[in-house]
Amino acid sequence: MHLNHTHDATRLSWLAQANDRVTDFPLQNLPLCVFRRRDGDEAWRGGVGIGDQIVDLAALSRTRCVSGELAAAVQAAAGASLNPLLELGPGAWQTLRHGLFALLEAGSQNEPTVRQVLVSQEAVEYRMPIQVGDYTDFYTSLDHAVNCCRQFGLEVYPNFDWLPIAYHGRASSIEVSGQKVFRPMGQSRLDAAAAPVFGPCQRLDYELEIGAVIGRGNARGSRIALEDAQQHIFGLCLLNDWSARDIQTWEMNPLGPFLAKNFATTISPWIVTLEALLPYRTSWSRAPERPQPLAYLSAAQNAAEGAFDIQLEVSIQSASQRAAGLQPRTLTRTSFRHQYWTLGQMIAHHTVGGCNLQSGDLLGSGTISGPTAGEAGALIELTVCATQPVDIGHGEHRGFLEDGDTVLFKGWCQRENFVRIGFGVNQGTVHPAP
Amino acid sequence: MHLNHTHDATRLSWLAQANDRVTDFPLQNLPLCVFRRRDGDEAWRGGVGIGDQIVDLAALSRTRCVSGELAAAVQAAAGASLNPLLELGPGAWQTLRHGLFALLEAGSQNEPTVRQVLVSQEAVEYRMPIQVGDYTDFYTSLDHAVNCCRQFGLEVYPNFDWLPIAYHGRASSIEVSGQKVFRPMGQSRLDAAAAPVFGPCQRLDYELEIGAVIGRGNARGSRIALEDAQQHIFGLCLLNDWSARDIQTWEMNPLGPFLAKNFATTISPWIVTLEALLPYRTSWSRAPERPQPLAYLSAAQNAAEGAFDIQLEVSIQSASQRAAGLQPRTLTRTSFRHQYWTLGQMIAHHTVGGCNLQSGDLLGSGTISGPTAGEAGALIELTVCATQPVDIGHGEHRGFLEDGDTVLFKGWCQRENFVRIGFGVNQGTVHPAP
Repeated sequence: MHLNHTHDATRLSWLAQANDRVTDFPLQNLPLCVFRRRDGDEAWRGGVGIGDQIVDLAALSRTRCVSGELAAAVQAAAGASLNPLLELGPGAWQTLRHGLFALLEAGSQNEPTVRQVLVSQEAVEYRMPIQVGDYTDFYTSLDHAVNCCRQFGLEVYPNFDWLPIAYHGRASSIEVSGQKVFRPMGQSRLDAAAAPVFGPCQRLDYELEIGAVIGRGNARGSRIALEDAQQHIFGLCLLNDWSARDIQTWEMNPLGPFLAKNFATTISPWIVTLEALLPYRTSWSRAPERPQPLAYLSAAQNAAEGAFDIQLEVSIQSASQRAAGLQPRTLTRTSFRHQYWTLGQMIAHHTVGGCNLQSGDLLGSGTISGPTAGEAGALIELTVCATQPVDIGHGEHRGFLEDGDTVLFKGWCQRENFVRIGFGVNQGTVHPAP
Repeated sequence: MHLNHTHDATRLSWLAQANDRVTDFPLQNLPLCVFRRRDGDEAWRGGVGIGDQIVDLAALSRTRCVSGELAAAVQAAAGASLNPLLELGPGAWQTLRHGLFALLEAGSQNEPTVRQVLVSQEAVEYRMPIQVGDYTDFYTSLDHAVNCCRQFGLEVYPNFDWLPIAYHGRASSIEVSGQKVFRPMGQSRLDAAAAPVFGPCQRLDYELEIGAVIGRGNARGSRIALEDAQQHIFGLCLLNDWSARDIQTWEMNPLGPFLAKNFATTISPWIVTLEALLPYRTSWSRAPERPQPLAYLSAAQNAAEGAFDIQLEVSIQSASQRAAGLQPRTLTRTSFRHQYWTLGQMIAHHTVGGCNLQSGDLLGSGTISGPTAGEAGALIELTVCATQPVDIGHGEHRGFLEDGDTVLFKGWCQRENFVRIGFGVNQGTVHPAP
């Protein structure tokens, strides 16, 4: 995949707000969502973000601006999920992106028509942009692994160096930003000498992750080579892997997390296409003192551009702060580039035994924690399991999440000579246990 | 749920082969499948098993034998998956069962018409009867847990007594009986002092399980009470959770099995409805010296009839035995009634934190091993990790599975004063690593 005119920072849109250099959605981004107006009862439809607007793809498909392959791609993205577009494959994804780019670029003769199909982002609500088949969650930040294991007096398991560890997650409870996260009930046993207790989770946490949407899969019994892996990704989003730490600790031996994770997962409404992210790829390497990956997890392409430099930020806002109109407090700033394994390596490993990925599957990167103290992607790390509560502003502190807390993730890419592009916001609010 | 005329052993079908007392599919069973004739290119359609025949529900829906609610239920089951029927709910499932019972019972005036829509089971091929949303695999046989842990010098984890341990499995690689199981490639490290090696799995195994198809789900944030749990099950099938033991041992810390399990899972073509299984429920209790379950995992209904006495049998046939026309050798006979946790408890636990089950989800019971040596549901137990190879007949022995081996599961229920009903066969054959 190569850079092309859609990455050219000198290109501008006829929509002024898309050119302000602070928007998440300049002409060079064009992320996809599924939305509808909050008022009224119109159907869910696909949309493309531009500035503070959305191009309504269902409405666009009824105009004369699109024909041929572009019309087919727009049509596939115009329904209640983007899966039909995903299934059309990379050619259609690029046709859609390049077609929208031309329609939205300054000087387009279609500007008057396209203006008619814009909807303000302020007027809409979003739903899950894809119907997820299988969801897999990885564990690929060495800093996260070290931070967590240290709390239990443990070393990171030796397999961490050799394979991108993962477990299958729960697809049914993945919802879009704005999700109501009900504090789960469950068993925990913090006192190893006593019987477990049942009640509301006492250690509710978030995990900052990147989600990768699989565009093209592989047949069962076949595998995806690392060199080809990025081409199977349709795009990326922000993902919050809400976690019940007390439930997790008690239940996870020997088969891994279950109820501690399956009560809620939140993704951002926007999927930023892999093509939009190409300029922000960066090199990946393993510190020479650590074991180097086996052959199927090594490739020149991966070393040259296997990592993505996505800036990430976690903020929190309590219910009382929200009521008082106070801004969320930023707790963490880090980058996805620090991850110990790349998305390509995750895909190559996932399929090396013949497991079939399918269009619409979702991969979570695992918690993203950078190498320094302010870069931890979960409260359990930031607060050392609540022993060092973190200041969330205005006199409030948190060990773990309290009811009413809203957790917000933001993500964006910036690089010299390129335009800043962003992921929008992923937010979710904790509600009391039902 | 109560017994009714469809459980009455004195009722007979006009189809003689359904009355022979050895068939899996008497009038009192009526399991569902999705099938098509092997010759020709007809569409996949739902079917109901009776004797050695299948009632073609697509063809039946075009006759005058069905009308009203029965016609709606038949129509919902007439397509390429049974999910539309599942979504109609328990009323429709019973309407279908009782309607078919009447059509197939001796004396039915519709016999001539229904005979026209019978297809011989010998002439068909099957596909996945449901489209699985999420797949969850449990670990609920104490005997299996003890057998496996002993090999590693471990005790069963203390949480085993308190909750039905589970992990999320891979839905995409679940296929129907007849599945080609490709030996997975993967990493393992049998020598803890050396680097891991990559290659074909050396310890390929099966796991004997019951699969439960969820008919009705629950909303996210709500839970299913143990008393109500059985009513959320549409039916049961036989499930083979193929397992790569060497890959599993290396990868599973700390997040559980991943590639060791996600390369293939096989279910039987037939789903036996919960209503058909009602007579074979049996009491469940926990040995008094073990911890008794917490309140949400305790219920009078569960104690009275929470377990299912399903007889199970595992057989194996090597490629050379198959070529020579030799019968499979039976390795294991056991019953599902021995399980330490019931299906109801699995459902109550799965949803207690608010995780939403959905129509079409599949739960695996976990390996079913009974209390005696001949009742182990996996080779790793039967052969003590290949240290005591098992005789598979005709001079062959197995520690783990070899390429060309076919593994066959059978299951049936028998109880005095009731008719024997069965699950058909679940079989899969091991193919070399691609």
